[in-house]
Amino acid sequence: MALIVQKYGGTSVGSADRIRAVAARIARRVQAGDRLVVVVSAMGDTTDELLALAREMTDAPEERELDLLLSTGEIVSSTLLAMALKHSGHPALALSGAQAGIGTDRRYGRARILKVDPQRIEAALAAGNVVIVAGFQGTTEELDVTTLGRGGSDTTAVALAAALKAERCEIYTDVDGIYTADPRIEPAASKLEAVSYEEMLELASYGAKVMHPRAVELGAVFNVPILVASSFSEAPGTLIGGASMMEQRNKVTGIAADTDVARITVRGVPDQPGIAARLFEPLAEAGISVDTIVQNASVERLTDLTFTVARAEMERALQIVRPVAAAIGAPEALADTHLAKVSVVGAGMQSGPGYASRMFRTLYEAGINIELITTSEIRITCLIDGEKVPVAVRALHKAFELEG
Amino acid sequence: MALIVQKYGGTSVGSADRIRAVAARIARRVQAGDRLVVVVSAMGDTTDELLALAREMTDAPEERELDLLLSTGEIVSSTLLAMALKHSGHPALALSGAQAGIGTDRRYGRARILKVDPQRIEAALAAGNVVIVAGFQGTTEELDVTTLGRGGSDTTAVALAAALKAERCEIYTDVDGIYTADPRIEPAASKLEAVSYEEMLELASYGAKVMHPRAVELGAVFNVPILVASSFSEAPGTLIGGASMMEQRNKVTGIAADTDVARITVRGVPDQPGIAARLFEPLAEAGISVDTIVQNASVERLTDLTFTVARAEMERALQIVRPVAAAIGAPEALADTHLAKVSVVGAGMQSGPGYASRMFRTLYEAGINIELITTSEIRITCLIDGEKVPVAVRALHKAFELEG
Repeated sequence: MALIVQKYGGTSVGSADRIRAVAARIARRVQAGDRLVVVVSAMGDTTDELLALAREMTDAPEERELDLLLSTGEIVSSTLLAMALKHSGHPALALSGAQAGIGTDRRYGRARILKVDPQRIEAALAAGNVVIVAGFQGTTEELDVTTLGRGGSDTTAVALAAALKAERCEIYTDVDGIYTADPRIEPAASKLEAVSYEEMLELASYGAKVMHPRAVELGAVFNVPILVASSFSEAPGTLIGGASMMEQRNKVTGIAADTDVARITVRGVPDQPGIAARLFEPLAEAGISVDTIVQNASVERLTDLTFTVARAEMERALQIVRPVAAAIGAPEALADTHLAKVSVVGAGMQSGPGYASRMFRTLYEAGINIELITTSEIRITCLIDGEKVPVAVRALHKAFELEG
Repeated sequence: MALIVQKYGGTSVGSADRIRAVAARIARRVQAGDRLVVVVSAMGDTTDELLALAREMTDAPEERELDLLLSTGEIVSSTLLAMALKHSGHPALALSGAQAGIGTDRRYGRARILKVDPQRIEAALAAGNVVIVAGFQGTTEELDVTTLGRGGSDTTAVALAAALKAERCEIYTDVDGIYTADPRIEPAASKLEAVSYEEMLELASYGAKVMHPRAVELGAVFNVPILVASSFSEAPGTLIGGASMMEQRNKVTGIAADTDVARITVRGVPDQPGIAARLFEPLAEAGISVDTIVQNASVERLTDLTFTVARAEMERALQIVRPVAAAIGAPEALADTHLAKVSVVGAGMQSGPGYASRMFRTLYEAGINIELITTSEIRITCLIDGEKVPVAVRALHKAFELEG
């Protein structure tokens, strides 16, 4: 009678037929003896359609109302899945985020889960129900509905697994696991049976679209084993954080690539204390995630400051950065979108030298120029020309001997 | 600074353009100095589309999940209207039924409002907001979402007007008021400036589709003046219960017709005490509204029992009645849908004789057979052949001198 939290993404519940298929999968697990809490995303393009409706009303929808609007998408899919389950003879209860006890702060559109009160879910499980929870949403103390932003439904699932002390959180999506590289780019990429939280975090943060780093982070904090697998097949998937990582078969786990990169450069920044804070604090307040910050060497007490953001955030970031740049006397802020990141990730790298030099040499031999380099303990990332990503990934996959 | 509760129906908010038009109407009222609470239905066919999705899952959707599903329709329209208002510079707050403090019992699909806690609405009004409330829904003490069933959004509006002690409740719909007869049947029908609650109740119960009797009843109990008017024009509408009814200009207010009638006849019912209760109690428990009950004179201690229900309820009513009929020894239960009701309604009728005979003679002279008669203090209703409704309405409208 293992307690499992499952999560099905928007594609997996994208139509009436697919919802029925998900119900059938759940039913088999229930018959096998598991107790299930199931988190669902909104059906297919529902969220985009609701956003389009909002944009028909106003260019800048109020965040509180937008969250209340968007939260309906997951309520629709969760109630339909509960109906499909009951139709097949399995007691089920659909809960909104509020009903499921998911309490958040008031940061609409990117709320953080503050607490999970699992009483109602536990009572429903004890009564023999499969509990279906609308993902991506929670509620403030004032009963205002919030949405969790990117990776929201994954985060709901991992948070519930932690609060319920579930044996495992299973993320079902349209890919069947984590690969040593994107199989669409490198056909020789092989599926990983297991990765550590840290490796998954780096892979996810640096372009592996399978799972949002935020949910991985939460899993790491609460030590929730997370299985990523396909909702369309019975293939085994990849287990994050569950298996012993004592013996690394390979010091490099995989190659990640991220083409969703916009680079912003502020030219002629006075080299004074406090300038970086003045630039980056307003970006953080606006919820814009910044990475790969590089400050070039100072020439005549002026420096160029470069950082990257997601492409969708570029315009908003520029609107915030330009007045600050003007106020501190920097003559211009430029942006471009032709770059991409490739990263080599592996928990084994921290104990071994030579990984960075092997990466740089491989890219050089493939005729690829490196524009920027950043590293973590278990990752090396290079910014390169976006069009060179496929060549770079295949060359690195080969150089680090990742073929299956 | 009058406090007004308005309600806009599904057609009035059926598209982005229409929502903007409603926002513009509201804005004009706010500029004129009124404080507004606005209840909205779901956009156009949303509720039917959600129902269709549910039916794709199962023939008999669980009522609790169905209510949670259907409640999303009004949340979508209320958030969009709030966005449109804010876009035009008018502070607005959208509230779900739960957030608006609408507490109901647990009868899913046809919940009754038990209490309204208006604190949050009052605070939002005091802060200068137009408050937009998702109609048709409420919440149980356990935070489960309920829907109010037929006439739900009208009922939400009248209940809020009562709880907030609003000056008036304004129901905006696709007709511009209450007429002496359906203008599509009788072009000479004229709009009524005012009607009493009792007259409106009879008109609504007997076929005037403008407003559900349940909301009228609530208005009568709490003495809330209700204006029914068009959301597409500035025509003045009809005021229910607000004006003095001391001097009736005309003892007959209007002619109502209802073609949504199914007749069920149970043949050969033993004429014993308690039999009627055994038949009608299970119908009431199933939430099926029964009217026009007639029991024919007993022959050899056997009688025929006839009643009418809405056509959509006929199959369900038969499924309930047939086993009871068999159990009490009645040989058959029959149903047909070819009948309709025409009614003459008027508060002045109770004090004057001759109305019934004038109605029967008018129908006789128009060649229309009367199958059943029922009366109240201010209404006389005849069941006639459904195809004869237009002829009957025109004849009665003329006989009772209702031409404008």
